[in-house]
Amino acid sequence: MVQSFLPVLERIGEEIEGLAGRGRPADYIPALAAVDPNRFGMAVAELDGTVYGVGEWQQPFSTQSVTKVFTLALDLAREGDSLWEHVGREPSGNPFNSLVQLEYEHGIPRNPFINAGALVVTDRLHRLTGDASGNLLDFLRTESANQDLDFNRDVAASETAHGDRNAALAHFMASYGNITTPVPTLLREYFRQCAIEASCADLAVATGFLARHGIRGDGTRLLTRSQAKQVNAVMMTCGTYDAAGDFAYRVGLPGKSGVGGAIIAVVPGRCTLCVWSPGLDDRGNSVAGVAALDRFTTITGLSVF
Amino acid sequence: MVQSFLPVLERIGEEIEGLAGRGRPADYIPALAAVDPNRFGMAVAELDGTVYGVGEWQQPFSTQSVTKVFTLALDLAREGDSLWEHVGREPSGNPFNSLVQLEYEHGIPRNPFINAGALVVTDRLHRLTGDASGNLLDFLRTESANQDLDFNRDVAASETAHGDRNAALAHFMASYGNITTPVPTLLREYFRQCAIEASCADLAVATGFLARHGIRGDGTRLLTRSQAKQVNAVMMTCGTYDAAGDFAYRVGLPGKSGVGGAIIAVVPGRCTLCVWSPGLDDRGNSVAGVAALDRFTTITGLSVF
Amino acid sequence: MVQSFLPVLERIGEEIEGLAGRGRPADYIPALAAVDPNRFGMAVAELDGTVYGVGEWQQPFSTQSVTKVFTLALDLAREGDSLWEHVGREPSGNPFNSLVQLEYEHGIPRNPFINAGALVVTDRLHRLTGDASGNLLDFLRTESANQDLDFNRDVAASETAHGDRNAALAHFMASYGNITTPVPTLLREYFRQCAIEASCADLAVATGFLARHGIRGDGTRLLTRSQAKQVNAVMMTCGTYDAAGDFAYRVGLPGKSGVGGAIIAVVPGRCTLCVWSPGLDDRGNSVAGVAALDRFTTITGLSVF
Amino acid sequence: MVQSFLPVLERIGEEIEGLAGRGRPADYIPALAAVDPNRFGMAVAELDGTVYGVGEWQQPFSTQSVTKVFTLALDLAREGDSLWEHVGREPSGNPFNSLVQLEYEHGIPRNPFINAGALVVTDRLHRLTGDASGNLLDFLRTESANQDLDFNRDVAASETAHGDRNAALAHFMASYGNITTPVPTLLREYFRQCAIEASCADLAVATGFLARHGIRGDGTRLLTRSQAKQVNAVMMTCGTYDAAGDFAYRVGLPGKSGVGGAIIAVVPGRCTLCVWSPGLDDRGNSVAGVAALDRFTTITGLSVF
Repeated sequence: MVQSFLPVLERIGEEIEGLAGRGRPADYIPALAAVDPNRFGMAVAELDGTVYGVGEWQQPFSTQSVTKVFTLALDLAREGDSLWEHVGREPSGNPFNSLVQLEYEHGIPRNPFINAGALVVTDRLHRLTGDASGNLLDFLRTESANQDLDFNRDVAASETAHGDRNAALAHFMASYGNITTPVPTLLREYFRQCAIEASCADLAVATGFLARHGIRGDGTRLLTRSQAKQVNAVMMTCGTYDAAGDFAYRVGLPGKSGVGGAIIAVVPGRCTLCVWSPGLDDRGNSVAGVAALDRFTTITGLSVF
Repeated sequence: MVQSFLPVLERIGEEIEGLAGRGRPADYIPALAAVDPNRFGMAVAELDGTVYGVGEWQQPFSTQSVTKVFTLALDLAREGDSLWEHVGREPSGNPFNSLVQLEYEHGIPRNPFINAGALVVTDRLHRLTGDASGNLLDFLRTESANQDLDFNRDVAASETAHGDRNAALAHFMASYGNITTPVPTLLREYFRQCAIEASCADLAVATGFLARHGIRGDGTRLLTRSQAKQVNAVMMTCGTYDAAGDFAYRVGLPGKSGVGGAIIAVVPGRCTLCVWSPGLDDRGNSVAGVAALDRFTTITGLSVF
Repeated sequence: MVQSFLPVLERIGEEIEGLAGRGRPADYIPALAAVDPNRFGMAVAELDGTVYGVGEWQQPFSTQSVTKVFTLALDLAREGDSLWEHVGREPSGNPFNSLVQLEYEHGIPRNPFINAGALVVTDRLHRLTGDASGNLLDFLRTESANQDLDFNRDVAASETAHGDRNAALAHFMASYGNITTPVPTLLREYFRQCAIEASCADLAVATGFLARHGIRGDGTRLLTRSQAKQVNAVMMTCGTYDAAGDFAYRVGLPGKSGVGGAIIAVVPGRCTLCVWSPGLDDRGNSVAGVAALDRFTTITGLSVF
Repeated sequence: MVQSFLPVLERIGEEIEGLAGRGRPADYIPALAAVDPNRFGMAVAELDGTVYGVGEWQQPFSTQSVTKVFTLALDLAREGDSLWEHVGREPSGNPFNSLVQLEYEHGIPRNPFINAGALVVTDRLHRLTGDASGNLLDFLRTESANQDLDFNRDVAASETAHGDRNAALAHFMASYGNITTPVPTLLREYFRQCAIEASCADLAVATGFLARHGIRGDGTRLLTRSQAKQVNAVMMTCGTYDAAGDFAYRVGLPGKSGVGGAIIAVVPGRCTLCVWSPGLDDRGNSVAGVAALDRFTTITGLSVF
């Protein structure tokens, strides 16, 4: 089992140690606000599933929007291109909750990674499977080979209690006919996905199919080669809220962040990464997480550019 | 002189031949509107500068916004990161001429490839050199090894005569203090750049420094390795107006389009491409051009994802 | 009992008879879409409560947004100026359902007559009384001296079934803390108000307190003189969706329209009017209704300007 | 010569004396920023032209946007309703310089009193007369019976030097074909109008035609009765930037403010007023001016509502 990047991770771990001003944790729900913003972990998964890391790389945390990538992949695998009639794949150019573009574009969200878009993808997966969040959890358990992965029910409840904005988005799209699951059901499914807890190790391994051009850990195919590239492309242009351009500029890898402080990233054909640190910048991305990935591509030269 | 991709280009040339419904040429100035939308050429330049192509790959055309890449590189080489205080690097999420975001973001354009951003980059290069368009023309002549490259003075005059919207953008940013060159001078410099004529061969070769991580054709360095990657990243997220997500999804390469029908694209460390066909889709990108690049990465597997 | 304006009404009734192209009824719920757009009635109420009219002036119809005036008055009478911390009194400058301004203005609707603002007023009246729609119905029954006035339960149910956009507005404002009634309760209260049925006669008489500077039909005071003027002012600047400027220009009276085709209008110190015709223009106002009021002020010279 | 409201003015003058926190003068050009924000004058003109006042009611100041009313009237008198194909009459619902709505509404400004709309009216009057600012000055001199009224050339020059935003507006509308005068000429004409200096006495008298339903001081007719009402209606809904609703609510009269600190107001059929105090609120209206007019209608009961 090769651990090609271990020395690089160790160097990054040391550098990040000294990083001042790591931002603030998300504060819209108590469960997230209580986390120490200075915590840090980082893991790399090789193509063969070997995983290793530095810092708290085996510590579970709230995955939040990171799971949007997996839900997208699961739906795309099932319904293919017809998904794109219901959600776009262009950057939003606005803060991640904005209703403005949604109104100008008649209820079709710009991409699957803004909240509105993720609600649409959840709606579609739920129509096809009857259990969107359950399918997602099964997939993550299998791919990470960790049957202990689960929803944090307190977080899900807390999200629901503070869920007026997502309820507004869902009803708004329903008014355009772009959501058909009853809104309370849809929100339950959506918030459960956000509330899955996993570690850097779990997520780095589970993301492997995007570095293997669509092949799951057991060698079966989830996505076509084209679809895997397409998911990576959407991550590159839309994966980090209104900072996708900056992320591409600094890191140069397809990536997806969550307000829990995690970021997953893909080096196509080579490896996958997950970094976690709960302190966020003002655009919702982990300060230490972006810095660590920036260092990774600078040291290894593995940016796609 | 290796011509690795010649068979691929020939195959693409044949496939494009049969492509129906190639869009419409830009019609805001007569000089562009008069071009046959079905013309087509495509060239690849190897890292060593070898260039070859299919169709009308040696036919000069109006480069338009494609030159924004070179102006950005020339300014970045001179002033470095301070440029980013005056222009962002995020996708615009709106049609390319929109004033809306410019107003909400206080006169700082979202990126260097929308018109407002290119005006800022031109302003800055002109302050540093006293001759933005002259420097650009010199650079393109040298890199393409074609001293015949020149401005089309009719096109520049026609742009000026239809230049009210760009004048509005320039005055608007001047009102925020983000433009200091007198507006008439700035517009002259800007429109000259748009009016440079070159062929697919010229542009593919001239783009080579972005595949060589910053090294010019004569072996000297224009950009640092980091800067070259950064320009590629900005092309990936912002290079094709409001269709950057779709371009990344379909083509998966850093690229920049112009309303003259050209698109340049970079395969980092491998080669550069230029395709030209004047029929545009409703977001301003060449229909046959995007299709040809889509085929190129599908056949060769050279998408960065 | 003086009927000062009867000849004027009769003349208007004849002129409107010949009016071609009367627009289309609202079509977002079946109950409204089914009405013949050419129906017409108009009533005037003198200050002493005498009421008379032409056409179908005693025919009940769906009052829809016209009731927003009465809910505003009932809440203002109870809580006074603190209402204005929760809703503005500026024209919206956007179609009546727009979420855009609501987002830029942090959940404070521009005025009490756009849907978002009416939801806020309903929320506040419901907090103070525990029965917003019941209080409204009581008030209308008493002022119109018509105990038969009632909700149309089919219309209320139909509004609820098509209520996603109002649900989105309510949840959105709740996310800013500007709505505290549970959203399903609030929507029920809101849709009931819209579903009250009344005739031109009923509404013209019930509006009388705004012409009598705040005095109800029984001589008691509902609003202070200042408050009555203020409600008239808000009707003038915000009462006809995105056409308030045009309504002021043509009619020159404080007025409020509803998508059921009714418009109430006030000649302060002189009389009140209600006109009904279900055909709407593209901004949601009754075509024949605006025309009839335009004729009324032109013939009588009773515009406030 | 009756001076019906002199006691009211004297009372208001005393009350305003004690008004704390009178806002700040406009600071975008030095000539305006230098004025003491606490200065105050107020004049009333009776229908017969008798004028009297309190405070500095005979002190000339920079009229700024107040002149937009007169330019509108002069153009409307000449071209009639065709003006409304080029400018709307709806409130803007946005700060007075906003480009956003102009873009969404394809270069047709919302009303004649936002800067964009006033540029359109100036363009049209200049096309018809060849001398928009000269015609305006002549009209004001004649109506106020003060041949000393003139442009302040320093202010006009200063406006021009800080005129990038208005230049942006003009070029932007020209790009939609809604401006045909060359932009530099148009701006000169526009800034001259803003730079006219006059006193409260001058402006109150000159506004008289709007209280006399269109009749000029010499008894000739400028506007039809309908047109005079219409100008009053546009003042009511659009005369005080993004605070028209609040002005209607508090004052209840057609009015037009300028960033020099003046406000004119009309009591149709009764009198006209002008108040001046340079301290502005954050929406660009004179703090003491609005307060004084609010007191006037409260004391006299002369609100139109």
